[in-house]
Amino acid sequence: MSADQNQGIVTAAFLVIGDEILSGRTKDKNIGYLAEYLTAIGIDLSEVRVVPDVEERIVEAVRELSDRYTYVFTSGGIGPTHDDITADSMAKAFGVPIDHDPRAVEILRNFYPEGQLTEARLRMARIPQGADLIENSVSKAPGFRIRNVHVMAGVPSIMQAMLDAVAPTLKTGQRMLSETVDADLPESRIAASLREIQGAHPGVMIGSYPRSVDGRFSTQIVVRSRDEALLQQAADAVRAAVAATSR
Amino acid sequence: MSADQNQGIVTAAFLVIGDEILSGRTKDKNIGYLAEYLTAIGIDLSEVRVVPDVEERIVEAVRELSDRYTYVFTSGGIGPTHDDITADSMAKAFGVPIDHDPRAVEILRNFYPEGQLTEARLRMARIPQGADLIENSVSKAPGFRIRNVHVMAGVPSIMQAMLDAVAPTLKTGQRMLSETVDADLPESRIAASLREIQGAHPGVMIGSYPRSVDGRFSTQIVVRSRDEALLQQAADAVRAAVAATSR
Repeated sequence: MSADQNQGIVTAAFLVIGDEILSGRTKDKNIGYLAEYLTAIGIDLSEVRVVPDVEERIVEAVRELSDRYTYVFTSGGIGPTHDDITADSMAKAFGVPIDHDPRAVEILRNFYPEGQLTEARLRMARIPQGADLIENSVSKAPGFRIRNVHVMAGVPSIMQAMLDAVAPTLKTGQRMLSETVDADLPESRIAASLREIQGAHPGVMIGSYPRSVDGRFSTQIVVRSRDEALLQQAADAVRAAVAATSR
Repeated sequence: MSADQNQGIVTAAFLVIGDEILSGRTKDKNIGYLAEYLTAIGIDLSEVRVVPDVEERIVEAVRELSDRYTYVFTSGGIGPTHDDITADSMAKAFGVPIDHDPRAVEILRNFYPEGQLTEARLRMARIPQGADLIENSVSKAPGFRIRNVHVMAGVPSIMQAMLDAVAPTLKTGQRMLSETVDADLPESRIAASLREIQGAHPGVMIGSYPRSVDGRFSTQIVVRSRDEALLQQAADAVRAAVAATSR
């Protein structure tokens, strides 16, 4: 058991598979959604990678991430076309055979009208041996879980439905709590105080996020901790510092 | 010289540094922007990673990416607060000292009114030895380039200004050309033809991107190549296949 698990911390990585994100043609909507979702249920998203539709790149990334984090989630590359190589890449990454899965074939057979379950569509039933299916309430073709890796679709509505199907099976950790303090100040004016408060409160993480609206800089200060009392102490100190600086 | 460079291909990775992206608090806007920008100037974005504000994670990622791609771009973590650790992490990654850089100090001194260049603000002048500065036309505190790594701010308006400053210094490759064919069909109906066309046109990449609007599935087929003639041949074949399937 790692130190993380000892402290009730559950970690995850997200692997986005798709040339279309790297070319800029499609703007990713899944990273922010998954990040917020996992945070809300007490899982720390610790890394995101975007890789192209290239088998060796997918295999390398999923092996690394699977070794390093409690869970891995992937999106993209599980459709019926020749560029959908995620399922085969997962089989290769974990050294297991892959073939049409009878459970998945059954789902597709029930969904498509007689005679329309073409070879291309059947391709969506290729699942690595030993994987569990993940239900797809939107368009039926399932995702799957192999080891600690959850393989989901790239289309946001389907990814979200699959995530809902998966969530109840996940072990979750102690939730990270957070408190946000808005400061109508550029962050450089509050930086010294924040450094001091961070030093005095080792059980919290203090993040400072500048923004610029119409050329005017303000700052959001986010205090995070798994301990409610520590969180409040540090947030109070931040609020006091912001008030003192704003005067 | 690698095979890639032989063929006039220039590659890049983007390293997004920031707890706020991984917690879902901030939705990243830089990945899509950079992807589109690099594609337009003939640089292939080949990988994206998002890592937390943790020195060892930043150091590890930037070393790997710097070895692997022509260029690395980073965003985030170069402000004045205690959680801005990107500059120090870069110095560590490349084994060089870091201190207040006279050129950067001068820029800040000219920008801030007399007596307002506090210690926190001076922190933004910490630049690894041997780095070149990247101009920040928005809020002055510069980014920098060390080796093949371009270190930029996370605030989108500033990141974009820095990218404009950097672009003229980049070597660019032969542009990837693309043609998009819209098919009012679910991708499974066109999948067999696309596989065949892809097999017959090794010099192009054919991507198939399903979407669902109000429960109706359609497909965008994107054909890409660096060779205009090959691109047109393959795109014509795709258009013919879509027309035949739609009949």
